[in-house]
Amino acid sequence: MMAMDDDMESGALRSYQDKPRTFPSMRTKPHTPPIIRMLMGINVRVLLILLLLVFGGVFYIGAKTSPVIVFVFSICIMSFLLSIYLTKWVLSKDEGPPEMVQISDAIRDGAEGFFRTQYGTISKMALLLALVILSIYLFRTTTPQQEASGLGRSTSAYITVAAFLLGALCSGIAGYIGMWVSVRANVRVSSAARRSAREALQIAVRAGGFSALVVVGMAVLGIAILYAAFYVWLGVDSPGSMKVTELPLLLVGYGFGASFVALFAQLGGGIYTKAADVGADLVGKVEQGIPEDDPRNPAVIADLVGDNVGDCAARGADLFESIAAEIISAMILGGTMAQRCKIEDPSGFILFPLVVHSFDLVVSSVGILSIRGTRESGLKASIEDPMAILQKGYSVSIVLAVIAFAASTRWMLYTEQAPSAWVNFALCGLVGIMTAYIFVWITKYYTDYKHEPVRMLALSSSTGHGTNIIAGVSLGLESTALPVLVISVSIISAFWLGQTSGLLDETGNPTGGLFGTAVATMGMLSTAAYILTMDMFGPIADNAGGIVEMSQQPESVREITDVLDAVGNTTKATTKGFAIGSAALASFLLFSAYMDEVSSFAREPFKEVDIAVPEIFVGGLLGSMLIFLFSAWACSAVGRTAQEVVTEVRRQFIERPGIMDYKEKPDYSRCVAIVASASLREMIKPGALAIVSPIAIGLVFRILGHYTGHPLLGAKVVAAFLMFATVSGILMALFLNTAGGAWDNAKKYIETGALGGKGSESHKAAVTGDTVGDPFKDTAGPSLHVLIKMLATITLVMAPVFL
Amino acid sequence: MMAMDDDMESGALRSYQDKPRTFPSMRTKPHTPPIIRMLMGINVRVLLILLLLVFGGVFYIGAKTSPVIVFVFSICIMSFLLSIYLTKWVLSKDEGPPEMVQISDAIRDGAEGFFRTQYGTISKMALLLALVILSIYLFRTTTPQQEASGLGRSTSAYITVAAFLLGALCSGIAGYIGMWVSVRANVRVSSAARRSAREALQIAVRAGGFSALVVVGMAVLGIAILYAAFYVWLGVDSPGSMKVTELPLLLVGYGFGASFVALFAQLGGGIYTKAADVGADLVGKVEQGIPEDDPRNPAVIADLVGDNVGDCAARGADLFESIAAEIISAMILGGTMAQRCKIEDPSGFILFPLVVHSFDLVVSSVGILSIRGTRESGLKASIEDPMAILQKGYSVSIVLAVIAFAASTRWMLYTEQAPSAWVNFALCGLVGIMTAYIFVWITKYYTDYKHEPVRMLALSSSTGHGTNIIAGVSLGLESTALPVLVISVSIISAFWLGQTSGLLDETGNPTGGLFGTAVATMGMLSTAAYILTMDMFGPIADNAGGIVEMSQQPESVREITDVLDAVGNTTKATTKGFAIGSAALASFLLFSAYMDEVSSFAREPFKEVDIAVPEIFVGGLLGSMLIFLFSAWACSAVGRTAQEVVTEVRRQFIERPGIMDYKEKPDYSRCVAIVASASLREMIKPGALAIVSPIAIGLVFRILGHYTGHPLLGAKVVAAFLMFATVSGILMALFLNTAGGAWDNAKKYIETGALGGKGSESHKAAVTGDTVGDPFKDTAGPSLHVLIKMLATITLVMAPVFL
Repeated sequence: MMAMDDDMESGALRSYQDKPRTFPSMRTKPHTPPIIRMLMGINVRVLLILLLLVFGGVFYIGAKTSPVIVFVFSICIMSFLLSIYLTKWVLSKDEGPPEMVQISDAIRDGAEGFFRTQYGTISKMALLLALVILSIYLFRTTTPQQEASGLGRSTSAYITVAAFLLGALCSGIAGYIGMWVSVRANVRVSSAARRSAREALQIAVRAGGFSALVVVGMAVLGIAILYAAFYVWLGVDSPGSMKVTELPLLLVGYGFGASFVALFAQLGGGIYTKAADVGADLVGKVEQGIPEDDPRNPAVIADLVGDNVGDCAARGADLFESIAAEIISAMILGGTMAQRCKIEDPSGFILFPLVVHSFDLVVSSVGILSIRGTRESGLKASIEDPMAILQKGYSVSIVLAVIAFAASTRWMLYTEQAPSAWVNFALCGLVGIMTAYIFVWITKYYTDYKHEPVRMLALSSSTGHGTNIIAGVSLGLESTALPVLVISVSIISAFWLGQTSGLLDETGNPTGGLFGTAVATMGMLSTAAYILTMDMFGPIADNAGGIVEMSQQPESVREITDVLDAVGNTTKATTKGFAIGSAALASFLLFSAYMDEVSSFAREPFKEVDIAVPEIFVGGLLGSMLIFLFSAWACSAVGRTAQEVVTEVRRQFIERPGIMDYKEKPDYSRCVAIVASASLREMIKPGALAIVSPIAIGLVFRILGHYTGHPLLGAKVVAAFLMFATVSGILMALFLNTAGGAWDNAKKYIETGALGGKGSESHKAAVTGDTVGDPFKDTAGPSLHVLIKMLATITLVMAPVFL
Repeated sequence: MMAMDDDMESGALRSYQDKPRTFPSMRTKPHTPPIIRMLMGINVRVLLILLLLVFGGVFYIGAKTSPVIVFVFSICIMSFLLSIYLTKWVLSKDEGPPEMVQISDAIRDGAEGFFRTQYGTISKMALLLALVILSIYLFRTTTPQQEASGLGRSTSAYITVAAFLLGALCSGIAGYIGMWVSVRANVRVSSAARRSAREALQIAVRAGGFSALVVVGMAVLGIAILYAAFYVWLGVDSPGSMKVTELPLLLVGYGFGASFVALFAQLGGGIYTKAADVGADLVGKVEQGIPEDDPRNPAVIADLVGDNVGDCAARGADLFESIAAEIISAMILGGTMAQRCKIEDPSGFILFPLVVHSFDLVVSSVGILSIRGTRESGLKASIEDPMAILQKGYSVSIVLAVIAFAASTRWMLYTEQAPSAWVNFALCGLVGIMTAYIFVWITKYYTDYKHEPVRMLALSSSTGHGTNIIAGVSLGLESTALPVLVISVSIISAFWLGQTSGLLDETGNPTGGLFGTAVATMGMLSTAAYILTMDMFGPIADNAGGIVEMSQQPESVREITDVLDAVGNTTKATTKGFAIGSAALASFLLFSAYMDEVSSFAREPFKEVDIAVPEIFVGGLLGSMLIFLFSAWACSAVGRTAQEVVTEVRRQFIERPGIMDYKEKPDYSRCVAIVASASLREMIKPGALAIVSPIAIGLVFRILGHYTGHPLLGAKVVAAFLMFATVSGILMALFLNTAGGAWDNAKKYIETGALGGKGSESHKAAVTGDTVGDPFKDTAGPSLHVLIKMLATITLVMAPVFL
């Protein structure tokens, strides 16, 4: 992976500007995993028949379960077919001149090499954890329901471990696909930018759309297959076996597997991308005064690789896990509520989330396809505002989503016990959709330089580095207020809508509240695939810009990619808003599921978590502390790795003085190697902290409770731990993301010529802010989204340990 | 106050270095408040007789209440006498040459002018709030106990308001005294530094000791007088009237008054001191490359004024309020417990905190007096490590404190119902003392440049501004972990020790747990007066250094004050550890008191705060958010004000080019005026947020609860709000304080010559870090300590609003 070194040095050292540089045979031998090689050895027809058999089996099981499952299967398969079409379309585009291809190849090799090593490490850890879960479940107690349904201890253990491994595997595939397409689309976008802005935009969108459809489709399909398989295998709903309302709890392992992989993917990728970025900027921009992505910067290839492994791969895993966690928690709550209300056919409430996300695939596909190339061609065609085009597509999706959501509530949630309940739940969905809209607006207000906050931040740069940092930190801290108010209002109003839906439990109490919150969460994510498309668009455009810059294309081409890149920054920032909002809601839902789970294991009611008890208060204190410590370790990992990069880049500039005059070639691969090994090393500490601390705290307080006569102490302390961690995590993530985004855009604002423009003292101060913001917004912040949901799923899976 | 301008400009503009500068008639007419002028008009003998009469009355009431109160009174009066001796001793020292005196006068005028304006604003707000409290209490419901004891609605209203105003007044006096002595001691320390390091140290310590004794003594005496007055007036413990165990709840207003004033004092002072400091540094150190406190810097006088109003006045008010809040909460818990356990004479448990702090006065006095001048004199005498001297004094105090603590538990907490309970409580005290010790150690580890973290931070400066900030933020976030673990262990172990003390309630359940935690808090603060002395020492030494620098004394004198200043930085940082630790514990105690209060008003049990209820969870979310928003506003206030200073200082350097060559005089007073008016304006927003938000949230959810059929919803949501705010507040304060201290010392470390030393690129990056750390550690951080306790007292006082 890092063997391009020698070849590059042996190349003729003429000025880069004299002729387009070529990097002869920069690529290493392509690596194909043995399993793929084996499959490729088989006859294509045999493969096709095998595939058809598998599909047939899946459909057969689905049909035995519920027609809804067949519907979900069909939609998922259709969207897979659409995604194959999108890939073919993207791959059919030309890769441009050889100098672009060679840069793109170097990026691809770097990214794929890192991905292999990183996921190798992650899969080893996942296998280890699977063994731990297996042994815990083999010794756990069983619930009365499980005993009644004849679900043995070992069956439940194997089910959970299988779900965990499947979740982990799917998450890995989601990450791989995100990266796979982005390292192929980037060069095609660069190449298209030479012809037309619109075409470049369309390629980036369709590439993003491909991975979005696959990621969302896989989350839905995976859960649907597991559900159907368990349903048929365990003979659910037949006399003497498990009730369908208990089935969703068996899926929790899937969510945990997904969030486990996503956590390490986000940590490793986030450290990689920002360490390379910060290191490249500190020496390149600040010390040497050369522009971003300049080929003279030895860390530039590492930086471009980082966009793929950090933003594409990690974000794919993150969103996959968001959707999986949200679907599973909503299924659990739907099941519990249906059981409490004695609804005759509870499957509607349980399968509702799968239907919502099936429609998500449909409406998002329409949105993606609505962005089309026009007849214009040639460099002279005026650049239409790409943000407006993306927004138009989003509007199409969201209008359809509202209609689809209302239809699915009527279809799935109509029950004769409360004939108007579905209307309330449709309104809950609307609350969620509106929350998402307002979130986007707030994020834009605080991070877009058209508005007051970023302009003030830019102004504070004019009085120096120090005031810039103070202003950015203040801005980030302040930006937590409005989102929290919005989330608060939507939690309470969705709860209230659910509570007044008319659904009553056996004792006549209204019970729909929590499910209302769950429906609002689904509303928030009802166009998840389109949002993920917009998110993936950003790093692809960023990379395309890098390739254009490095291959020294004319100014006009760079202008096109610069505009796309700027739009990508905004869409990236807004997606984070979604991710946090949905994490907050999903975590609150999983918390309720946790309490149900504990009380059914402990065979006694577990209704409240009383923070007036000292131990439980301490649990909360430790939960909040985890967030601070985790963020610290994530940021310092970037800082440390960036320092290594800085030292290396400085060394190259000193040892090869010709680099600055394009007379000597920098050694890109050394930087790639340094960042890769450092980020693998650095992702372990915060990741392990996140996994181990809830388990350790639960165990310690379980033992303490045992000796002081508090039977459920461990479980309660973990509950407080989880809630305080969630709250602090939301706030910290909002702070980190917004501050980072604002710093980035304050710098961009100054680069438009304001306050002295590029090269002024203000600009230097703004670059410092941007550097500080990098690990905030792309390492620690997104890792916190994943952490919050990982904590919620790990407590659910590990609940037996705390009792 | 700002009229020194013209005089200074009319002065001869010869080079400063040619002759010592004199600032002819820099002072304005001294301002004396009318009340003091009136008192000064009265004959001294009449005054003395009046004073004696007041004392006699106080003692008479005390004697009618309890012999313990007489003991407390006597100790307080003795320590006041000692403090008068210390002042006389300090004031008897010479003020040095005229150039020092004139600088000192300018500082004094600036500080006193700001203090007057600031406290004028604060007192108006306090009066307004008193009216609000009065009207709330006049319409509140009464508790069954109050009705039984015949305590009418209006009596209870007047009592609460009177206590509030007395608390506010005492807090104001505490702040004034802190500043009064520091603006007089600073020049005497500078002058003494010309003769001997030891003498300078002694003056600074004794000046700090004076205000520490007054502050602690006043907190104890104020509460004791209120207690005794209410006791006698309400005829407590006589048949048909109030029980003594309910008396402490009436004192809550005192704590709220104290924390209300402390909050605004800390905000206003903190913004003042750091805006001036940051502004001075950004232009002086970073842009012009002149040293700290250089007379050429136009903001230097404002910076020196800031030390007095920010560090001395505000910290006096802060510690006053800490001790008051802690005493009152412990008295409430002691009373509740004694009542539950039906202890015959509960007064021991109630008055215990007053006794502990009386002993605190004694042992701290011994510690302060143990630091003596030696015979050495002349500049050539070797500089002994002042930290070692202060530590020696601290060791003396702490050894005595352990003995005194054990004695007071035996004296006050022995009860025949549980003969060995006092041993457990003595151990709780030991837990508290040990917690304090470990806190100090942790703070030193993270902020002292002898240890790894600050060295790594300094190293990160060598790769630029950006990596320095990232490393500092990570360090601060990471530094929250160990203190939280220590606090967790001490809460649980103190609770457990209390629970196993053998005290049982009527139903035979152990009940001493919370009181155990209270005793641990007292243990933590059992040498509060000595700690406050060390804290006050810092800004006095800092100011002395400034005067030495400004009056251009020889290098050897500066060396002495530099060493004292560095020690002051360390002691300041460690005091913050105490403040946070005690705030965490006190807030947890006040939270329990709040629950008792609510349940007695609501006439129904209020036993738990269940965060699984959506509204209560939202309350917690909002509580954490308050901390983020408050910190944001505190930091941005400093940033904005500092920018004004930067602009002004730059303007002066441009308009008076002779300043840099000592040929023209800077206009100091304009900077003073700018900072003063800006910080008064800026303190209102965060302060109002802190006061209004708990009340508003309680009211909103009370109304929501009314319509949705949850009777105690408002009170419960406020409880969650309080707990989440406390937890987030502790973490945020730890983060801000430690990061700030570490940045400061990383810069100092580089200034010792490491990594290139002064003037290097590393040093510039480190100065940026120091600048960012300033508002963190001296504005937002300490304001959060006060905020946490203010929230706890405001919820107690405002409890009737939430029902």
